[in-house]
Amino acid sequence: MSDLWQDCMDFAILIARKAGEVICEAFENNKSVMLKSSPADLVTETDRKVEEMIISSIEKKFPDHRFIAEESVTAGAPQMLTDGPTWLIDPLDGTTNFVHGFPLVAVSIAFAVNKEIEFGIVYSCLENKMYTARKGKGAFCNGKQLRTSGQEETMKSIVITEVGTEREAEILKILFSNMERLLNIPIHGIRAAGSAAIDMCLVATGGADAYYHIGMHCWDIAAASLIVTEAGGVVMDTNGGPFDLMSRRVIAASSTAVGERIAEEIQVFPCERDDGSISLTANELLI
Amino acid sequence: MSDLWQDCMDFAILIARKAGEVICEAFENNKSVMLKSSPADLVTETDRKVEEMIISSIEKKFPDHRFIAEESVTAGAPQMLTDGPTWLIDPLDGTTNFVHGFPLVAVSIAFAVNKEIEFGIVYSCLENKMYTARKGKGAFCNGKQLRTSGQEETMKSIVITEVGTEREAEILKILFSNMERLLNIPIHGIRAAGSAAIDMCLVATGGADAYYHIGMHCWDIAAASLIVTEAGGVVMDTNGGPFDLMSRRVIAASSTAVGERIAEEIQVFPCERDDGSISLTANELLI
Repeated sequence: MSDLWQDCMDFAILIARKAGEVICEAFENNKSVMLKSSPADLVTETDRKVEEMIISSIEKKFPDHRFIAEESVTAGAPQMLTDGPTWLIDPLDGTTNFVHGFPLVAVSIAFAVNKEIEFGIVYSCLENKMYTARKGKGAFCNGKQLRTSGQEETMKSIVITEVGTEREAEILKILFSNMERLLNIPIHGIRAAGSAAIDMCLVATGGADAYYHIGMHCWDIAAASLIVTEAGGVVMDTNGGPFDLMSRRVIAASSTAVGERIAEEIQVFPCERDDGSISLTANELLI
Repeated sequence: MSDLWQDCMDFAILIARKAGEVICEAFENNKSVMLKSSPADLVTETDRKVEEMIISSIEKKFPDHRFIAEESVTAGAPQMLTDGPTWLIDPLDGTTNFVHGFPLVAVSIAFAVNKEIEFGIVYSCLENKMYTARKGKGAFCNGKQLRTSGQEETMKSIVITEVGTEREAEILKILFSNMERLLNIPIHGIRAAGSAAIDMCLVATGGADAYYHIGMHCWDIAAASLIVTEAGGVVMDTNGGPFDLMSRRVIAASSTAVGERIAEEIQVFPCERDDGSISLTANELLI
């Protein structure tokens, strides 16, 4: 069976590179921009065109596989992750960056079987960085093996996080008070690159020591979550519990110690899961 | 006279590229890190070695010129910008990025005569992006002319800012409440790349619409300030008044409208000028 998935992975790398070429070409031109859930939640013709291209290519080759992909589910329909072979696709992670010409955008393609990610591809196309990971076989960028920093001391960490498309005043307050608490530890710094997939790959390279976010979707982080763990890092829930791909919450870190310290400091707010229900635990804030 | 400065500029580009090579080589290796003003204010042997290399090369060729450079003034001595030909040098902007292996670091070299920047060079060496600007002659990246986005609507802007090395609780509060106010406008997003020089060059490329910061130094932004204005952007004080290179405060924006709107929203806090005095106006907060 593992050979079959390797075929899928080889195909995913080819199709990610092709998608990246389309994005790079469109990057230089005018983009027609539409709004989704808020004035800051953008989508372009390129997102849709690239997604269609990726899905139709894969469907032809693997007609029995399922898809969970960003633009196909903008209607907000819940996405159930089943045990069957499933492709999780973000055709263009960092759409706001793309619209503005901020040069960090990525194609993200993950492949899950029995609800576990078998491989993940993140192609940061303007940098021409192809991040890949195969379960149990390590993570690579352009063929060079990746290792997280291994940092255990939160005080010596660079942490990446994003405001994302969130603009509700109450939630913004929590987001910034979370950052303030981390800086009061203190930590070495906060960065925001504008693409969850690239943010997490930066943790995999060791360039940053942690990333956390609430509100992104499974297709943003499915591929990068395997890239981080195969590079020796950890992924966990924002409350420090086990990582749940559909929960829209993640901490990716160089070590359990740094991940858990971040989980202790940050306040979590509820957001609707990708599979429909609201995720809340007893000690989490209800707004 | 202008030919003479062109000679200086050609030499600056050569020396920036050479400095970038040294930084790229050191990037892959272990760095010995020391602290400066706070647990988050770092310096390495590479910062010092590269600065020495840049200054000694320029001194040999232009023995009468003056220098204002980051590592030579860590003792905190005030730096007076005179009318004479003066080189403002940050050998390694983004030291925290460098220490961690976060791939955005730059060599920044500016040259001022009669207190005006004649040319500015920012070399983002890991990306191999050489940003250059000559007063009145435009801004370029790897030879391609740069134009800011021209964005006039703050609501459609990506804004870059940095927490920097600031860890005083009162100041962190102001920094985050400033970001919160901007997001409440709303704006499209906030980014933080960890290098003032690269942040400002991203405004020059049009990838971001504005950058603001209080607390960086003249050597961080001297070169990039000319790159922004020669790309069609504006630089101003964080209170909306005229830009003052030695004030440690800047807004760089795609348009006066966006710059002034940011100035209206953000609260300014006092910090010691690079030339020694405290900058404060009547309506600014005194902590």
